[in-house]
Parts: sequence; structure tokens; C-alpha cells
Amino acid sequence: MTTLTTKHQPALDAAIDALHGRTFFAAFPENPSPEIYGADADARGRAYFEQQRGQHFTELLQAEPEAWVGQEETPYEQAALGIKYPFFSPETLISRAQTAFTAWRKLRPAERAALLTESLEGMKERFFDIAYATMHTTGQAYMMSFQASGPHAADRALEAIAAGYEEQTRFPEETTWEKPMGKYNLTLLKSWRAVPKGVALVIGCATFPTWNSVPGMFASLVTGNPVIIKPHPKAVLPIAIVVAEVQKVLAEHGLDPNICQLAVDADDRLITKDLAESPAVKLIDYTGGNQFGEYVEGLKGKTVFTEKTGVNSIILDSCPDLDKVAQNLAFSVSLYSGQMCTAPQNFFIPETGLKVGEEQVPYEEVVARLSNAVSGLAQNPKAAPHIFGAIQSSATHERVQQLALNGGRSILAHGPVDNPTFRNARTCSPSIQELDASQVEQFSQELFGPIMLIIKTKDTQESIRLAAQLAREHGAISCGAYTTDEAIKEQIMDEMSLAGTPVSFNLTGSIYVNQNAGFSDFHVTGGNPAGNASFTNPEFVIKRFTWVGFREPVG
Amino acid sequence: MTTLTTKHQPALDAAIDALHGRTFFAAFPENPSPEIYGADADARGRAYFEQQRGQHFTELLQAEPEAWVGQEETPYEQAALGIKYPFFSPETLISRAQTAFTAWRKLRPAERAALLTESLEGMKERFFDIAYATMHTTGQAYMMSFQASGPHAADRALEAIAAGYEEQTRFPEETTWEKPMGKYNLTLLKSWRAVPKGVALVIGCATFPTWNSVPGMFASLVTGNPVIIKPHPKAVLPIAIVVAEVQKVLAEHGLDPNICQLAVDADDRLITKDLAESPAVKLIDYTGGNQFGEYVEGLKGKTVFTEKTGVNSIILDSCPDLDKVAQNLAFSVSLYSGQMCTAPQNFFIPETGLKVGEEQVPYEEVVARLSNAVSGLAQNPKAAPHIFGAIQSSATHERVQQLALNGGRSILAHGPVDNPTFRNARTCSPSIQELDASQVEQFSQELFGPIMLIIKTKDTQESIRLAAQLAREHGAISCGAYTTDEAIKEQIMDEMSLAGTPVSFNLTGSIYVNQNAGFSDFHVTGGNPAGNASFTNPEFVIKRFTWVGFREPVG
Repeated sequence: MTTLTTKHQPALDAAIDALHGRTFFAAFPENPSPEIYGADADARGRAYFEQQRGQHFTELLQAEPEAWVGQEETPYEQAALGIKYPFFSPETLISRAQTAFTAWRKLRPAERAALLTESLEGMKERFFDIAYATMHTTGQAYMMSFQASGPHAADRALEAIAAGYEEQTRFPEETTWEKPMGKYNLTLLKSWRAVPKGVALVIGCATFPTWNSVPGMFASLVTGNPVIIKPHPKAVLPIAIVVAEVQKVLAEHGLDPNICQLAVDADDRLITKDLAESPAVKLIDYTGGNQFGEYVEGLKGKTVFTEKTGVNSIILDSCPDLDKVAQNLAFSVSLYSGQMCTAPQNFFIPETGLKVGEEQVPYEEVVARLSNAVSGLAQNPKAAPHIFGAIQSSATHERVQQLALNGGRSILAHGPVDNPTFRNARTCSPSIQELDASQVEQFSQELFGPIMLIIKTKDTQESIRLAAQLAREHGAISCGAYTTDEAIKEQIMDEMSLAGTPVSFNLTGSIYVNQNAGFSDFHVTGGNPAGNASFTNPEFVIKRFTWVGFREPVG
Repeated sequence: MTTLTTKHQPALDAAIDALHGRTFFAAFPENPSPEIYGADADARGRAYFEQQRGQHFTELLQAEPEAWVGQEETPYEQAALGIKYPFFSPETLISRAQTAFTAWRKLRPAERAALLTESLEGMKERFFDIAYATMHTTGQAYMMSFQASGPHAADRALEAIAAGYEEQTRFPEETTWEKPMGKYNLTLLKSWRAVPKGVALVIGCATFPTWNSVPGMFASLVTGNPVIIKPHPKAVLPIAIVVAEVQKVLAEHGLDPNICQLAVDADDRLITKDLAESPAVKLIDYTGGNQFGEYVEGLKGKTVFTEKTGVNSIILDSCPDLDKVAQNLAFSVSLYSGQMCTAPQNFFIPETGLKVGEEQVPYEEVVARLSNAVSGLAQNPKAAPHIFGAIQSSATHERVQQLALNGGRSILAHGPVDNPTFRNARTCSPSIQELDASQVEQFSQELFGPIMLIIKTKDTQESIRLAAQLAREHGAISCGAYTTDEAIKEQIMDEMSLAGTPVSFNLTGSIYVNQNAGFSDFHVTGGNPAGNASFTNPEFVIKRFTWVGFREPVG
């Protein structure tokens, strides 16, 4: 392993430096251009995906499947993919993970880090395969499918590897401890081991099958825990490719591929609870809805990282240019049709309107400008398909169609987003509804999908109070705020920080509140009920192992 | 605060270096000699304690007490101390903590660290006051009272301050993030805040009122959380003095003393549950029994650090000199009459006896040598009072007196430990009982106090299996092992590490399995049911605050 560790040490060191510096860093280019990834990279990815349809996925190195199962559908065609994955019972998966544990935990952290970094190099070769797999499971548009599931996910994975490696090597492996006792010194040889917690489970979601799963997967692996990846049954292929790449590297180095297993639900049997409740499973990473998330958090004797739902707010107070703000926010709600955990939902606007430069723009005009910006995007035939993508599940589509808020005023009706390439795509433009600040119960839950609520408040103070209250009580993953007033800005920072919610101020142009950069932006750090996924602050890796010390007199 | 931060920065830097190096480090001398602490330091401490008896404790800066209460008794006289402390209702304590929160959290980490380090300088001046207070509440002998409650506790507190300061300053406060976008760079100013979680509660125990409480107290404080210290009603004075020293420093710097409050039970009202269950309380540090510990761990929405009970094992396989081993182990069970969380309880001895040098010493002789060493210590009139101290509670005394193990054989009966200075001291020498390895349920619970169980096993393999199983299933805080076989040693390290239990090998002479050094030995790191107190690995401080980021376009 020496060659491998030496080869990957510079990448790890650069990643650790980036984690600490938090300036811009990306190990994997986000631009899918032929100059970077090769002239036929895109075509090969597309061909891979087409060939995979209707076939068994045979890339995994997990022996003796008990069945072949698959339930994926592409939202772009509203048709089954027909890809079948090997099914294993929870008992088999856990027993294999336990068998694989010993050899994996006995490697040195640097060796595990090198092997995992090597597997990311393999993942990089598959970015276009993963992109088409993501597109046709989640409904993301092509560019997001490539970036979020490929380079951005790989960066988050590398970040987790680097953080885990750093924490495990933060203290000496051994040292001589010499205590002066007056006439002599008492000397002990002390040593310490970072002991992995045990079998880890990663439960994926349907919308971001790699971005949300690889951090926990690589964090558990680098800290010596065998991992079982249980994707959402509707979004298996993207992460299956990643698992296959990890298994390939493990096997190449004579290690048991079951150190990292893929687990799929059978068509007639959901296995997540069986896995989660197994006493052998010590670590769980979960992305998904609140109800199941709270069940996972309530399991005894597990270390759990969750990303559940939140109610994200935009606080509008003042700005120099309202059109730029409207454009930026319209894009944020439209990107992947609002199916991002970081997408804004509640837009708090004072009834007195907004101070725009020296002018006071009335409330109704602000609402109209926002609404027009949204409908303008949805009706832009060239841009819309690439922004909105498709709706992952019919449940999300139905939620928008059936949205009936008690006492709400409809500002903009939802509608289809025309997609000339995929005529049968499941699409939906945002539904905009207005509510009064007093109707808190109407806007205090996440309405996942292209739903935008405008909340009319008395003033910015009420906007801040409500945004912070919702974040504290119901969770929030992002917050956007527009203000030219330094005192208001500091107040928002202070109050939202107590609600554990990061804030993006005054975003215009091509940077959006939804976006989250590896090596710089912490993600769901645990300060509110939206979860404690903790990408990637030290907590994310430290909680996956235990320090144990040994000591013995010398001589 | 600049002067204060500058003044204490070298101490903090040295402490951080020590945490990382894990070689011997002590900021506070453990030797209570007049040369170090002054000719009359001891006499002043003794006089302070005597003056305090029967009086109100008036050193706290907590206004308007609702009553004056106190329940302490000295185990050395089996008599009430008569010291009364100000009582405040849980509502008052929490409301004052919340009021104090804002100013405290808005200080910079370096400022909080400096203030707290300053308060440890104040604590140092009180080491002898604290020593006598500890002696006459816990029953510890004088030397342990001084060392454990004074310098060792202060070292653990400094360790927590240093770790908390380091973690909060580990990432930049702000940075310019510049992402190349092809034709231009996207530039954001990003900043981050370490946001404290909220009101913290520290629940103390009756045997180590400062050593077990100051780490959580200072860890929560340095990370910006206001703290309520709720000591065990039988051991208030030692920690009350520490709280008073913190409050003094806070007041001297114009800060609200309620940042760090003492909370005591009224004689007719226990307030711990009211405090723990308050939604405002976000952090709890707990030391004590299992049942209450599990209740605390089960509270929703809290970050909890616990040190509960464990079943500590000694594995005897082989050694060069059995008498040295017997002396060392006899001391370990006798020190403070076995009332230490790290005291060994279960001694696993193979039925074939021990390999001692080239000789095989039969089982019964090993048992006899251990028993003789224990009775020799207990009957040593000069040494015994200074080793055994007194029994803190009558419940512990009764446990030893009434010990009746189903199927056990009595090896050595308990008895009084004569104390010429305190004729009415509640004392008890160890009861040694023998059990067979098959009687697991008899030795799988902590029997707190001077109780030593000898477990006759088939061989060392069975000893290791049982020690690891007990640690995994019932918790363990320490483990001692004696072996001259390198393979056995590695096996013990491996199996006990998976059970999250530190192991001391082949201790003889004046170093004991019970002892635990700040800046070097991790303590209760969370790998088994004994708790997750985590002194002081990074987890201990990281979980007390949340990283929250902010970003805004530049220019």
C-alpha cells in the first residue's frame, strides 16, 4: 500500500489544507467539457446508460445474489428503466459486513484514505455514466446531474476522506510519558487507536442519490467501518456505479469487496428498517423525509447523521436593484423545480414594500416582479428545460397540483414546463401563493417541490422573527436575505445563527442560495431540526470512531 | 480583555501542545508541599473549612436566594456539616442563564478562554479549601482530596478550555472565496461563527465533585454556553468554591455572574429533573448511576455527556513477579475504598494458575497472594487511613455488608479500617468473593465500593472473552492486564479496543489502573455503555457548538 499512500498523499494534504482554509477548492472539474473529460466522454456516458436499460447491473462484486430486483423509472419518459440489481437479505448483508470488518479496520488510516481516494479516481472516469443515471432517475437536468452527482459529490467525498484521515492522525500513535516523581521518573509507553464503531448504513434519497450519500459513505469507510449503502429504490444506478468503483479498488488490493456493499429493496420487501434496527449497525447516515428521519434518530445505540426537511426562508428588506434580486430568486425556486433541500420556500416581504435604492417599491409590485421573473423563466423555451428538469415523483407533482392553503391567495398558477427533447417528461412550474404572517401553521412545513409562498409581514423585524422561529422549530437548511442595512444584516446573522441556519446575503447574478460548495460551505451542521448531517465539520468524522488508549511501564 | 488574552495565551498554547503531544504535562503541581503552595496554605485551608461549618456559603454572586439549604455530612465523623447554600427555583436559574447568554456568547473564544483560565488561577489559590471540603464530603483521604479535586481537576478544566478554544479557532473567521467561472471570477466573502448550543447543565456526583464536573463545566463555558452546576446534595462545597471563583472573575470583568450558576436541591425538593427537562437546556454533563444516566441520555433534543457505571476487569495471564502485581492490585481496590469509577472489580484468573517467570503458580496460591496483599494494606495502621479514606455513603457501606453472591465463596471478609484521627469514620476494607466464570450474571453489574470479585476461568482466552463481553454489554471505564506474551497482549488490545476500554498493562510500583492523567489519558470516550464523557477528545468540545456560515458577493 506504500505506493498508493504516497501517490495520494498530495491530494489528501491539499484537501486538508482546503478544509482549513475554506477558500475555493475543487479537486474534480465541474465543467463537463470535452477539453477536460475527453471528446467522447459524454457520448460514452449516454451509450452506457442506454445499454444498461433493461439489463442486470453486473458490476458489483457481491457474490450469490438471492434475486434480481429494480423499480427505477425515468421522470423524463415516465417509463420504467428495467435495470435489475442483486438482492441480498439484511442478514446476509450484515453478516458479510461483519466478516469484512476486521481486515478493513486493521489497515492504517493512511491506507484506507489512499484506497478511497483511488476509488474517486475511478468514479471520475464514470462521471458521465453517473450523470445520465442521475438524470433518468431523479429528473435533474443534464448539467445538474453531471455536476451534483459527479464532481461536486466526489469533492464532498474527498472532503470526508481528508477530514477522517486528519482526525485519525491528529494524535500520536504512541508516545513516552515520563512523570517526574521527585527522586525518579515514572515512565509509561502510551499508545492510542482510533477504533471504528462498527457496521455503517447509508440510507439514500431519490433526488440526490450520490451527493447526499457519498459523504457519509466515505466518512464511515475512512474511519474503518464497513458500509452498507441502501439507496432509494427509485434512484439506485448513480450510487451503484460508485459502489462498484469502490469494490473494484478493494478487490484489486486483495480486500473483501463486502467492505462496501450495495443493498436494494426487493420489489415486495423494504429492508431499510431491518438494517437500521440490527444491533450490529452502529452508524447511520440518512437523507429523506422527516417521519422516517425521526424514526432513525430515535433508534437506541446508534450514531446517526440526518438530513431531513426544513423550511427555508428568504428575508427581503432592501436592495439596490430589485430586478436582479427577482431574477436570482426566480432561478433559485425553479432550479430542479424546487426539489433541492436548499431551495427557498417562504419569502418574507414587508407590507410596506421594499426599499430599492432611494425608492420605496410597494409590496404588490415586489410580488408582481417576483412572479413575473418566475413565469418568465418557466416560459423561456430555450432555458427552462435545463433549469427545471423534471419532477422526480408523482407524489411531488400531485402535491403542487393539489396545493390548497387555507386563506391563501394564488399569485401564480403552476403549469407544465415544455421540454422538446422529452415530450412525456413530468414537469411542473412553480405555484406561487400568498399568505399573511399570522397564518403560521400554513407555512411552517416543508412543501417539497416547485412551491413558493409569499408571506406578507408587518415589517422586517417580523420577517426575521418568523424566519428564525421556523428554523428553530421546524428546521432550515438555507436562508437568503437582502438588505443594505448593516444593523439588519448583523441582526439576521445573529438570530439565524442561533437557529443554526447559514445565510446568503444579497445574492444576484450566477450564485444562488441553493448552492453549496464542498471544502467551504458547511451543510446541515445540526443547529436545528432539519438534521445533523454535518458535511463536513469535524463532528462528521469524529463521531464514527472511538479513541482507546493503552499504557505500560517502560523498562 | 486584550491584556487578559495576551497574559493567558502562553498557558493555552502550552495546553494545546500538550493535548496533541500527549506526553506528561501538568499546569498545576499535584504536590501539596509548603515549598510550592506556601507555608501556611494547608493550615489556612483547614481553618477555612472549619469556619465554614454551620454557616451560610456567601461567596456566590447569585442575588436574592429563595431559601438556604444544605444536606452535607462528613463521612469522617458521620455528622452534618451544617453549611447552607442559596436555593433558587429551576425557573429562576434558567431564566438567569438565558439572560446571561447573549453577552457571553458574543465574546470571542480567546476572551472566554482567557477569563476561564484566569478563574483557574483563582481556583489554585483555593486548592486547600477544596481539599478539606472534598475530604469531608466524599470521604476521600487528604492526599486524594487535594490532588483529584485540586490540581488534577484544574488540569482537566484547562484541557477542556484549550480544546474548546482550539476547535472554535480551527477555521478562519472569514475568507474571500473566489471561484473561476471561465471569463470572470465569482467572489464571495464568507464568514463563520461557532454558535453555542444554549443553556448547559452539569450534574455532579457525590464522590468526585470537582474532577468529574469541571471538564463539562469549562467545556460548555469556553464554547459560549451559560452553565448551571447542579452538584450532588452530599458534595456541594468543593464545586461551590470553584463556581465562586468563576463568578468572581466574571464580575471583575463586568460580566453577569449568572453565566455560571450553582444550583442546589432544596431539602424537600430535588430540582435536577426540572432542570434537565427544560427545553432551554441543550447540553447536559452527567456523572452518576446508570438508572438516572439512562434517563438523561433518553431526553430528546439534548447533547448529553455521561459517565455512568462500568464493570472494570483485571486479566491475569502471566508476569515476572507475582508479589509486585498483588501489591499493585491490592492498592487499586483499596484506594478510596474502591469508590472510583476506574477501580477494578472483576479479577479473571485461569484455573490453571499464573505463569510467573518460569514457574506455574497454582490458582489458589494466586488468590491467596492477592487476598493477603489486600488484608496487609487494610491492617497497616500507618498507611491504611491514607489509602482507604472513608465510605462516602451509608448505602455503599450497606452494599458491602449485605453482599451475598449466589454461589460465591468468601475469600476475605470486609471489616473496619482503623482511623486514629477520626474514630467515628465510616470505613470498610474490601470484601473478596470468588465466583466461577459460568456465573456471569453475578459479576456483570457494578458493585460500587470495596468489593473485589475473583472469577475463576478456564484459561486466559475465557478471561479475555468475558472481560470484553462485560465491557461491551455493561460498560467499562478501565481494564488492567498482566501478560508477558506479546500475542496475548495484542489480542487484549484488539478485543478491549472494540469494547471501547483503555487497557493498562503490567502495572507495578506506584502507578495504578485507577489513575487517569489529564492531557494524555482519554477518559470514557464513548465506546461502551459506561458513557461518553469524552475527557478530552475533540468530541467533548465540538458537540457543544454549531458551525454556521454566512456569505455575500464582494463588490
